[in-house]
Amino acid sequence: MKIAVIGLGLIGASLAKSLAGRAEITGIDRDLDVVGMAMRDGVISRGGDDPSLARGCDMAVIALPVGSIVDAAGSLLPHLDPDTPLTDTGSTKARIAREIESLWPCFVGSHPIAGKEKSGYCASQPDLFAGRPCIITPGLHTPQGCIHRFRQLWESCGSHVTIMDPVQHDRLMAVISHMPHLLSFASMGLAGDLHIHRGLLGAGFKDFTRIAASDPVMWRDIFLDNSGHVLKLLDDYVRELGLIRKLIEGRDAAGLEERLRTYSNIRRNLYEDNQ
Amino acid sequence: MKIAVIGLGLIGASLAKSLAGRAEITGIDRDLDVVGMAMRDGVISRGGDDPSLARGCDMAVIALPVGSIVDAAGSLLPHLDPDTPLTDTGSTKARIAREIESLWPCFVGSHPIAGKEKSGYCASQPDLFAGRPCIITPGLHTPQGCIHRFRQLWESCGSHVTIMDPVQHDRLMAVISHMPHLLSFASMGLAGDLHIHRGLLGAGFKDFTRIAASDPVMWRDIFLDNSGHVLKLLDDYVRELGLIRKLIEGRDAAGLEERLRTYSNIRRNLYEDNQ
Repeated sequence: MKIAVIGLGLIGASLAKSLAGRAEITGIDRDLDVVGMAMRDGVISRGGDDPSLARGCDMAVIALPVGSIVDAAGSLLPHLDPDTPLTDTGSTKARIAREIESLWPCFVGSHPIAGKEKSGYCASQPDLFAGRPCIITPGLHTPQGCIHRFRQLWESCGSHVTIMDPVQHDRLMAVISHMPHLLSFASMGLAGDLHIHRGLLGAGFKDFTRIAASDPVMWRDIFLDNSGHVLKLLDDYVRELGLIRKLIEGRDAAGLEERLRTYSNIRRNLYEDNQ
Repeated sequence: MKIAVIGLGLIGASLAKSLAGRAEITGIDRDLDVVGMAMRDGVISRGGDDPSLARGCDMAVIALPVGSIVDAAGSLLPHLDPDTPLTDTGSTKARIAREIESLWPCFVGSHPIAGKEKSGYCASQPDLFAGRPCIITPGLHTPQGCIHRFRQLWESCGSHVTIMDPVQHDRLMAVISHMPHLLSFASMGLAGDLHIHRGLLGAGFKDFTRIAASDPVMWRDIFLDNSGHVLKLLDDYVRELGLIRKLIEGRDAAGLEERLRTYSNIRRNLYEDNQ
């Protein structure tokens, strides 16, 4: 099986590593140093920066930041045989699915939920997807065979596959991923002089702000692409903060305790092991 | 050495366990079931709910939620010999230090930064303080001998002791502990129906919201006690969110990327290992 992987960053290179020995990978990346590294590491069997290298492949995976995926599909498609299954690995799905489906019927979006704060080829690892969820987001007209091919691909890398409507996916991700990242990024705006107290920055702060080290370009694209859901949640969140502010300022101990208890119970119910 | 520990929750009982074999602990807690458990476990050698049990001790530690510490000191002090060193373990320091110092010259506040989301006697452990910071917050007139006694006590439990002014302590904690908790609590307000997607709630969300499971009474007291710093930071934070909102809504990709890069760099510089 020949698979073209466009983008040899964290996700693309981890996919290539995970498929080692089971597929022949063509790696396409505009950064030829990265292509060279992947060749030397044996992660890809051929590669370069030219999309025409994908010619003859059995399936193709675009693993680029959300803002670059549709353009990359446009450059890639003229070189693919009709009916070649195509997917992407972007963290938002509705717009990308809508735009690529109109160009290529055998497309279905994927979202392997397997990111980490480090990005790029050097952070890639063969077991990145093992035991982690992957959401596949078919449209109304996506061929079953195309869904099936990518379900098999991700499961062969150890992913737990869930099928979900692209719009529902984006709404869910806004809550569980995009907002936590946005709120964690913003909290760095308060952290100006903290370096002088480095020894005191214990576990709570460290965990809470860990995702604020994430890649700015990737998250710029995600926030812009999913702005509808993100802005609505941001307004809800600021309203929630306003309620807490009022309880603290009014020194309403009973009301504040009740609200904190509600939050705490929601969290405990989500993760019953309370970790 | 005889030490009275008032409050046998996570901090008080962990201190008693950590001192096992090196001190004789009198445990005072209004919950007699907990006192009974601590007796049976050999964590304390005597105990009950009556502050007069502290009579004759060489030092005393009040390990109660922030809102109960000054009252507990008021009930305890009539039973202590003059010059008995007294500390508390509250997460806020300025008000408590001011109020107790006026009653008892040989008082100095402590803040062992060793909390976790679970609270109460059953969560206590002898190594809770090992390798963790502990801040001691003397006032202008605190006797050096009193500071020295508690520095020794915490160091003997494995803590790394830092000395800091109580007001500076509260300002710092508002940024690195109180705000992250408040923001994490509030994010549960967006999490209404997430239980149906439990399998997808991966590491980013889990870490970001972990501290939202914390004890509501403890945090109610902290937010109210440190309201000055917390409300100011809350306003700063909402302003920061407003700036991000504007960049997303105006689709200012360059501006958004620049801001995210600033945040990401602050985080990376704080934790140079980038974890």
